[in-house]
Amino acid sequence: MAARFAEFVAADPSFSAQLSVILDGEPVVDLAAGPALRSSSVTGVYSSTKGIAALVIAHLIDIGRIDPDHRVADYWPQFAEVGKGRITVRQLLSHQAGLPVVERPLTLHDVEDSREAAAALAGQRPLWRPGSAFGYHALTIGILMEELVRRVAGRTLQEVYETVVRGPVGADFHLGLPASEDARYVPLGDVALTAAQAAEIASRPPADAMAAAVFSNFAMPDDRSPEGTSTNNPAVRRAGFAAIGGVGSATGLAELYAATLPGSGGTIARPEVFAEMAQQHSWGTDRVLGIPNCFGLVFMLPQPRQPFGGPRAYGHDGAGGALAFADPSTGVAFGYIPLPMQYPGGADPRAVELARLVGDAARTAA
Amino acid sequence: MAARFAEFVAADPSFSAQLSVILDGEPVVDLAAGPALRSSSVTGVYSSTKGIAALVIAHLIDIGRIDPDHRVADYWPQFAEVGKGRITVRQLLSHQAGLPVVERPLTLHDVEDSREAAAALAGQRPLWRPGSAFGYHALTIGILMEELVRRVAGRTLQEVYETVVRGPVGADFHLGLPASEDARYVPLGDVALTAAQAAEIASRPPADAMAAAVFSNFAMPDDRSPEGTSTNNPAVRRAGFAAIGGVGSATGLAELYAATLPGSGGTIARPEVFAEMAQQHSWGTDRVLGIPNCFGLVFMLPQPRQPFGGPRAYGHDGAGGALAFADPSTGVAFGYIPLPMQYPGGADPRAVELARLVGDAARTAA
Amino acid sequence: MAARFAEFVAADPSFSAQLSVILDGEPVVDLAAGPALRSSSVTGVYSSTKGIAALVIAHLIDIGRIDPDHRVADYWPQFAEVGKGRITVRQLLSHQAGLPVVERPLTLHDVEDSREAAAALAGQRPLWRPGSAFGYHALTIGILMEELVRRVAGRTLQEVYETVVRGPVGADFHLGLPASEDARYVPLGDVALTAAQAAEIASRPPADAMAAAVFSNFAMPDDRSPEGTSTNNPAVRRAGFAAIGGVGSATGLAELYAATLPGSGGTIARPEVFAEMAQQHSWGTDRVLGIPNCFGLVFMLPQPRQPFGGPRAYGHDGAGGALAFADPSTGVAFGYIPLPMQYPGGADPRAVELARLVGDAARTAA
Repeated sequence: MAARFAEFVAADPSFSAQLSVILDGEPVVDLAAGPALRSSSVTGVYSSTKGIAALVIAHLIDIGRIDPDHRVADYWPQFAEVGKGRITVRQLLSHQAGLPVVERPLTLHDVEDSREAAAALAGQRPLWRPGSAFGYHALTIGILMEELVRRVAGRTLQEVYETVVRGPVGADFHLGLPASEDARYVPLGDVALTAAQAAEIASRPPADAMAAAVFSNFAMPDDRSPEGTSTNNPAVRRAGFAAIGGVGSATGLAELYAATLPGSGGTIARPEVFAEMAQQHSWGTDRVLGIPNCFGLVFMLPQPRQPFGGPRAYGHDGAGGALAFADPSTGVAFGYIPLPMQYPGGADPRAVELARLVGDAARTAA
Repeated sequence: MAARFAEFVAADPSFSAQLSVILDGEPVVDLAAGPALRSSSVTGVYSSTKGIAALVIAHLIDIGRIDPDHRVADYWPQFAEVGKGRITVRQLLSHQAGLPVVERPLTLHDVEDSREAAAALAGQRPLWRPGSAFGYHALTIGILMEELVRRVAGRTLQEVYETVVRGPVGADFHLGLPASEDARYVPLGDVALTAAQAAEIASRPPADAMAAAVFSNFAMPDDRSPEGTSTNNPAVRRAGFAAIGGVGSATGLAELYAATLPGSGGTIARPEVFAEMAQQHSWGTDRVLGIPNCFGLVFMLPQPRQPFGGPRAYGHDGAGGALAFADPSTGVAFGYIPLPMQYPGGADPRAVELARLVGDAARTAA
Repeated sequence: MAARFAEFVAADPSFSAQLSVILDGEPVVDLAAGPALRSSSVTGVYSSTKGIAALVIAHLIDIGRIDPDHRVADYWPQFAEVGKGRITVRQLLSHQAGLPVVERPLTLHDVEDSREAAAALAGQRPLWRPGSAFGYHALTIGILMEELVRRVAGRTLQEVYETVVRGPVGADFHLGLPASEDARYVPLGDVALTAAQAAEIASRPPADAMAAAVFSNFAMPDDRSPEGTSTNNPAVRRAGFAAIGGVGSATGLAELYAATLPGSGGTIARPEVFAEMAQQHSWGTDRVLGIPNCFGLVFMLPQPRQPFGGPRAYGHDGAGGALAFADPSTGVAFGYIPLPMQYPGGADPRAVELARLVGDAARTAA
């Protein structure tokens, strides 16, 4: 499997990647290769951030602050408006709430402090009747997670993350990269979604109005930087927006997922909490993306389009190609970050192949 | 966009169409072209009728006569039979009730007076467990809307339409064309679904038994006319059957949809009622048609297969190619009727392209 | 239709089949052809067994022992563990329970006596939130039906079958073939799923982890026979496992389904019970198989991929190609068993074509 990784590196001189695998708590692979990345490098992972923000949710479920079967409005009364009173936390966190788009233009301010965007979402009528569909809340699930955490914990998701996740685990993955670490940051390459690119995508003849509306949310003007919503923009890195603003290393990702597995000590939450979050909550044709998709609570799950693990594995990919997950059936925790980012839709096939080789090896060894 | 319309007309000497667009209450396009249609012409629009019949439902919701969350049996006790006691009006009006076919042959009498057909449906076991699927009730949604209106209003849907919709709006679209207007009626061309054609379709080796059963309902013998269920049959025109019997002009369609938009005065119902009816209630693979489909309450919604507007637009296409809708995000109301009818399955791609051009222009102007 | 059957036989010298059709209680076709099968032969039918085991469920519903709307845990308290307390019998029997795989290796002992496997399933967390998906419980639905029957009847499903189904109907189809009938047993041919084949399938790079896990359950080692889980293994024949262990003739299958039709006397259960079981409960993309599928209570229903009857028909196909069903709209009961088994996924297109020809003939005659 390290051999296969070496083949990928040899096949493309421009390709760089970090790959980290932890098996039953022991690091078994920890590689960095290619011109752009070293072991000490950190970079952005877009939506793989969501799976890390989910660790905060897991902790708050574990300590009883969040009950997935409660109504969102129990924690956030304003959310009950225009037909959302009965939406559960479970529906909110599995892309079922019908709020995939903020129906006003966003600015980078909304990524740095999502309270106003959350209030806007609370006032919106769901695009679909809750329970009738699910669709990738590409950006808004970050806003929704952040507001939920503010309501139940009285602190920001990033603050809780720092205290109960990153600190105790000691992982090199940040929701809010300190300026002191900027020297290790490697910029995302050409495929990074700048404001200009997002605006261009949003302006294309839409295959579907809903997808166009969702992706138009990414076109945020920012006078301070031409780099828009990517973590190349220091303001985005610093904010650590829960949807797409995480920065770190593959090792950091693998260490965080390893800390969720049975036998790891339950630093973040008990394994049962992750088992419940890894249960499939949403399955079928994603109403936003128009392709098959599969979600647990926040986590993305393996499915035919992206078979990265066994039926109880959980993780998240990111635009560009990052992938991180844990698989309780094999004891594997996996982190992978490529540069440049060649897979705008996520699901780098190299990552999926490596994940399968790791799983096969773990099963054979067991 | 008028230029694109002219291109369509120039490209096909046999093509005729009416096109009407109203923006923020002001007519901005009102065209008729081709050999068959003039501005003063009226013709049939098949299932685009459903979206107009939905205006009656909206009015009755607005005045509190219909509550979408009530059970159908609250208004229509006989409906409770064989497992239908808990079906809500919401499910009934979003093609979820499992009654897409009347399981006895229909005659034109049933189109002129649907009470017996409604009683037959009330006695049927749903083909699917309510909540487990949706499928286009191509003909039966007309029967079901008509019976629901009879029960809650004590009058026919067509009578209510005349009084609270067509009259006040002053639109040239009829659920029951008076004989005095017959001179303006332009017959549907070759693609019109005559009884003979419907019988032929119903006799084909079925791709699926359910679709075959649904479309066999359209094969209605009529001793008075060989023209079957199309509005070419004077009896069908006169009855104005809520599923497929509407007759009018594109201008009439656009004026009706314009009257539903915020700022229009709420003649038919408050804008919130239309916003709720425009929410997606059903999405996925249509159990009858076997293709992706998307419905609100009665209204057909934009989706990848037919992206006619923004995510909050609502309307209905018709077999042959008619399309009419409103889009609150742009202020557009749109009516389009082509002849001959070349798209038996609806979704004339010219209509969808014109709709998108109109939307783009409206967004640019705003 | 007998002519078409003769064409199939003539086209392939290696093809054998039994075909039996009963119309309104009268046998109208009863054929056996080809080198391997005679009228007196019996052989295995894999998953067509499930439709026959369903007759036992129908009987228990009919006499009030099973209420589909009860929770499974009402009958089987241990089932309530890890989030399964609210799963209904209806969900359990329509492949919605999220238990498509026993998460430990099975042995042939589990097929002969499924109590331990049932206990294992009772301890598992569903792979998906009940209500969020369905997926073919290829093997486990047999275990679950067997345990449910044990709980409500105090006897094995096979014992109840013998007493209230096979005996009274007098049909040549067995859930547990007596050794005295072994001389009539014709072995399944090359496509039969031996333990070795199942292991090979399970070891392939998985298109999807869930499907791989489900089919790995079929790889059962058996020291007593290299023939694994097929009915070629005498232990499997003798046990008559409700998922895949039935043995009999096409005539037997047709006679059993004929006994379920209105007018047949209600030997097994009243026709209303079958009408409810024939209602579609699950529809869409099967989470395990990744293809469109359609189930009632246990029964497989006609759908575009396999249009074997009208919208109220019910039956089951089997790996290899067997098909048996009843269609109340035509009065047809149908049994078909081919050898060798050339369609590992079921849905022999010859069977579907014959079924449609029979239906057309019955409709014409009516």
